[in-house]
Amino acid sequence: MTIKAGLLLTNAIVLTMDDKYHLYEPGAVAVQEDSIVAVGTQSELEKTIQAQEVLDCGGKVLMPGLINAHTHISMNLLRGLADDLRLDVWLMGYMMPVEREFVSPDFVYLGALLAAAELIRNGVTCFNDMYYFEDQVAKAAAEAGLRGICGQTTLKFPSPDANSYEESLQYAREFIQRWKGHPLIIPAISPHAPYTCTEEIYRLATDLAREFDVPLHTHIAETASEVESMRKEMGMPQVPYLKKQNIFESKVIAAHCVHIDEGEMHTLAHYNVGVAHNPSSNLKLSSGIAPIQRMLEIGLNVGIGTDGVASNNDLDMFEEMRLASFIAKVSTGNPTALPARTVIDMVTKMGAKAIHIDHLTGSLEVGKRADIILVDINNMHNMPRFRRDEQSIYAQLVYAAHSTDVTDVMINGRWLMRAKQLLTLDEAELLHQAQDYAKRIDAFLIEREKSVLSKLIAIEGVKEEESFEIQSKVRVKDPQAVHEGIKKPGIEVLVHRRYHQYDTYFYFANQEQGILRYREDEIVELSGKEISKELPVQVRYRLTLLGETAEGQLASDVLLFRSRYMAPATHSLRFYREYFSPSGEKSVEKERERWRVLFKGTEFYINFDHLIQPDLGYFLEVKSRTWSRRDAENKAELATELVKYILGSDVEETMIKDYFELAQGLE
Amino acid sequence: MTIKAGLLLTNAIVLTMDDKYHLYEPGAVAVQEDSIVAVGTQSELEKTIQAQEVLDCGGKVLMPGLINAHTHISMNLLRGLADDLRLDVWLMGYMMPVEREFVSPDFVYLGALLAAAELIRNGVTCFNDMYYFEDQVAKAAAEAGLRGICGQTTLKFPSPDANSYEESLQYAREFIQRWKGHPLIIPAISPHAPYTCTEEIYRLATDLAREFDVPLHTHIAETASEVESMRKEMGMPQVPYLKKQNIFESKVIAAHCVHIDEGEMHTLAHYNVGVAHNPSSNLKLSSGIAPIQRMLEIGLNVGIGTDGVASNNDLDMFEEMRLASFIAKVSTGNPTALPARTVIDMVTKMGAKAIHIDHLTGSLEVGKRADIILVDINNMHNMPRFRRDEQSIYAQLVYAAHSTDVTDVMINGRWLMRAKQLLTLDEAELLHQAQDYAKRIDAFLIEREKSVLSKLIAIEGVKEEESFEIQSKVRVKDPQAVHEGIKKPGIEVLVHRRYHQYDTYFYFANQEQGILRYREDEIVELSGKEISKELPVQVRYRLTLLGETAEGQLASDVLLFRSRYMAPATHSLRFYREYFSPSGEKSVEKERERWRVLFKGTEFYINFDHLIQPDLGYFLEVKSRTWSRRDAENKAELATELVKYILGSDVEETMIKDYFELAQGLE
Repeated sequence: MTIKAGLLLTNAIVLTMDDKYHLYEPGAVAVQEDSIVAVGTQSELEKTIQAQEVLDCGGKVLMPGLINAHTHISMNLLRGLADDLRLDVWLMGYMMPVEREFVSPDFVYLGALLAAAELIRNGVTCFNDMYYFEDQVAKAAAEAGLRGICGQTTLKFPSPDANSYEESLQYAREFIQRWKGHPLIIPAISPHAPYTCTEEIYRLATDLAREFDVPLHTHIAETASEVESMRKEMGMPQVPYLKKQNIFESKVIAAHCVHIDEGEMHTLAHYNVGVAHNPSSNLKLSSGIAPIQRMLEIGLNVGIGTDGVASNNDLDMFEEMRLASFIAKVSTGNPTALPARTVIDMVTKMGAKAIHIDHLTGSLEVGKRADIILVDINNMHNMPRFRRDEQSIYAQLVYAAHSTDVTDVMINGRWLMRAKQLLTLDEAELLHQAQDYAKRIDAFLIEREKSVLSKLIAIEGVKEEESFEIQSKVRVKDPQAVHEGIKKPGIEVLVHRRYHQYDTYFYFANQEQGILRYREDEIVELSGKEISKELPVQVRYRLTLLGETAEGQLASDVLLFRSRYMAPATHSLRFYREYFSPSGEKSVEKERERWRVLFKGTEFYINFDHLIQPDLGYFLEVKSRTWSRRDAENKAELATELVKYILGSDVEETMIKDYFELAQGLE
Repeated sequence: MTIKAGLLLTNAIVLTMDDKYHLYEPGAVAVQEDSIVAVGTQSELEKTIQAQEVLDCGGKVLMPGLINAHTHISMNLLRGLADDLRLDVWLMGYMMPVEREFVSPDFVYLGALLAAAELIRNGVTCFNDMYYFEDQVAKAAAEAGLRGICGQTTLKFPSPDANSYEESLQYAREFIQRWKGHPLIIPAISPHAPYTCTEEIYRLATDLAREFDVPLHTHIAETASEVESMRKEMGMPQVPYLKKQNIFESKVIAAHCVHIDEGEMHTLAHYNVGVAHNPSSNLKLSSGIAPIQRMLEIGLNVGIGTDGVASNNDLDMFEEMRLASFIAKVSTGNPTALPARTVIDMVTKMGAKAIHIDHLTGSLEVGKRADIILVDINNMHNMPRFRRDEQSIYAQLVYAAHSTDVTDVMINGRWLMRAKQLLTLDEAELLHQAQDYAKRIDAFLIEREKSVLSKLIAIEGVKEEESFEIQSKVRVKDPQAVHEGIKKPGIEVLVHRRYHQYDTYFYFANQEQGILRYREDEIVELSGKEISKELPVQVRYRLTLLGETAEGQLASDVLLFRSRYMAPATHSLRFYREYFSPSGEKSVEKERERWRVLFKGTEFYINFDHLIQPDLGYFLEVKSRTWSRRDAENKAELATELVKYILGSDVEETMIKDYFELAQGLE
């Protein structure tokens, strides 16, 4: 009996990656329309196949196309934007501000086309994605001819494509309806991660996934700190938390799983959750090494992904394969861990299982779609080839071959690359457009990086406000004098508080940038008319950008400042140090007593400070804020008068130096 | 003033890697004969340089050629020979037997030429080597036009190129004399490693290195176990041990240094020892992750190497760069560790310092040799390019670029590759010759792997001996009867011993392979005429290949074996299990009492065995060995007679099953 085929591929080393790892050399594969109709030895197929076209593969490896099990392909437009940074600085200092500014349907579409070109060049025939405007990813992939699972992101914050999670879930519903049944694209829903989603989002996303029988793609346990937070807040790690939201009732693809325990692995295995392992990203961001060897022993299906290029910085699955094996070996202390054939399995058949599409692709078997690549291993970095052990072909692909050895790619029976020439994409034009985007992003960041203020605004959303602040400051010899002076008639105390303050001043080579102060403000005592009962001790964290320089001096050394920008500090001192890269810093610790008073009908703040570290003694500051320069001048005289009234004859000359300047003076 | 130059390279992103990391874009470099005569901006050099030829680099990166700080390039002929194995199985089961059989001047020369082609393609302009017949490596490198430090190996065992270490040191002396002063080749001496060399070898090698002022290249602390051995034997780790041999008085290049402590790092830094870090090899063989970040903090010069391709499996320095950064980040938990520029430094300027040739190469500076590469980063996997941060070019090279992006290579002012075409080597011819070698090595290993005996001979050097062994065996009900029977007249006891034996039997799918027995033989009691005093308890480890099958039966169930091959077992049970890959195994634990006796003028061994695990009871065996089949037949009858004489009326039928067969029967 003969079988009809459109194309017969011959003279290849055929790695079927079927359940028995059949390997044919010389082998052949027959393709009819979008599917594989025969696989076997060349002599066998030459007898049984009646083909319209026969293609001699020249002794190359013919294998299933590679599956990239977790990525954000549109981020190809952000490759190399920022590297060698901590995760939070990288994410919140660069990625998110740039995404907020630039991510649009146009951006997502172009990024996806660029990635499609890179994926095809690297022998990837199927990818599993998660991003915003995922409709555009699907459109780009379909046009390029790539197979993909496209997951529309949803999270609790406003995102570039939705003002609320309700909006993004509605977007996802429409997106899924639009693409469901496409020959190449499988739409999916992607609640981002436990720390960026609510329980409700996970439950609604699961309902959606089940309603349309589409995958649910989410990040799980990428970093130790997010798992730690979950344990603190919920009393459990991430997998049990997600189980409570019933997400495992849908077809889940769990990216990362770096920090999960044995029990969690068993839960994932029980629910047939697929894991996407991302070696480069986990190493580069120092997230850790996922316990893949153990997952495989437990029976989990684990695929391999690149993550987005912003943390990789490419979509090279050959690199990921090698890394997956290397880090499994070194982390288990066992050089036989994750042997080459297992790794190839993870990027083909097992990878397809992990993303729940092994009925379509992942191996060269009759009835599956024709997703095929040819790999040339007859070159200098692959030779010689030993044939003693049939398994050595897998080792050759994993440990020696490069992504650039892929010469031909077919997806769904259609050639997308022949002899390293892309057939569905115009690379020169794509690169040109990409470079245009890069220029605009560069310009945005250069503008922002020019000033500390812009960087502050970028991450903390500070609003610029013009105001004047006057300050009269004097050194105090006798602390007792202040407490007595404040009781003098004519001073009406509105509020009285005591703080313990830890200030860190960042200063910059370019002094016009001003000084950025990070303050930890521990309120240790509260009293006065407005406060009726004591509150528990609390700490505030604030950033203040001390205007470029003092605007000038008024009256007798009363300082006039303009525009102090303040924002709550939501990150750590370490974060800000790395993000702002100051040229120097100085710490000051003090006890502050603070009164809000009325004096001659005008409100003033009185700060009585005890400088502890460095040990600089006692200071009295009288401050006020106004919106006009003329009013500032009036208040300046009154402030000096108030200082003198409090301290009586004991008053020294008022001074203009800030504490960090006094601290610097000690060096 | 104008400067004359043979060649002016323009329109490039010039990374100088000088002490201030000057970067020019568009930049230019002028080359005159073998050296760099100017480096700077294009506009500047176009004014000052009078060049015979001007080459437009088309916007590519122009940087110093990469330095591979530790390799064994001739092992390119062994790429992919054996993978995913433990270090000892890999080394002693495959690498060393094949090297013993094949390494010759011809092998080394061809391997080095193959490697030269791969190195040049990957942008490597200088390598630091260690192998046998190093003269041939030097010859190949010089012909290819590569710069190299060529280290002649010396070790305490006979090697392919020397029967003794004295011979290899003499070879090294002549080799150094021959090549000293060559414009490309720097000869060196390479005592292999502390565990393969003696103190004397290190001292003599150091003397040689100092006499000729050449580098001394050795392996230090690659695995935890070799360091542990050194501590046990010498009471100190490897660096202090080597310091005692004065090796640091020479210019040392220390490969690996995976398992060294802070104190050892300080010692190496004090003596300006260069370290060669080998990420792929250390991961693939599961040796560990070297504490590179700490070494750099302490001020050590660390270069990066590929090691030989047999444990890599390529010579791709771009891969090593990326890995070095990745594993530093994940092992320190700090994603800012080993940032991209530092990594580039390690493969250029710092790498040159590490191998003690920074006066010649490693940066683009006036007066240094013109060792230059061009890297094309205007392609899909490198784009877009952000220019906000000048440093991002380093990140692009480390995290995104591939070795295949190198387009042009110049060494010592001579082009070796232009537009990806090699100019000094015939790749097709080299690949052809490599494949011939691979076939011969395949044939050798296939022949060997065919039989367990050949594999045994390959690693333990067993000599095949033809002999016959007869055995009469019977189950014993009453142990007391044996002890009484042995005292009967006519039996002269020559030796009496008691053992505790732990036997593991490996059996194979192909039963013709026979059974391989691993025996731990603990002697717990010694007595008899030949032994005058008791010895301390001792254990012997032995391998015995129980001839293919029993040759036949003689008399009443006396077994006749032919050719039992025995060898001391120098490796662990785990090693043999992986090396021989048996299809099954069975363990037997027994107490054995053994007598060597004279009975009717013939020597016999009498074994009285108590099978403990599995609990099979008591057995008596009478054995003898002979060299002729006829003699065997005579002895067979006598053996059965002896069994009956000892046990008297209590004797059961003699049996032919071996213990492992009885144990199997229990399942």
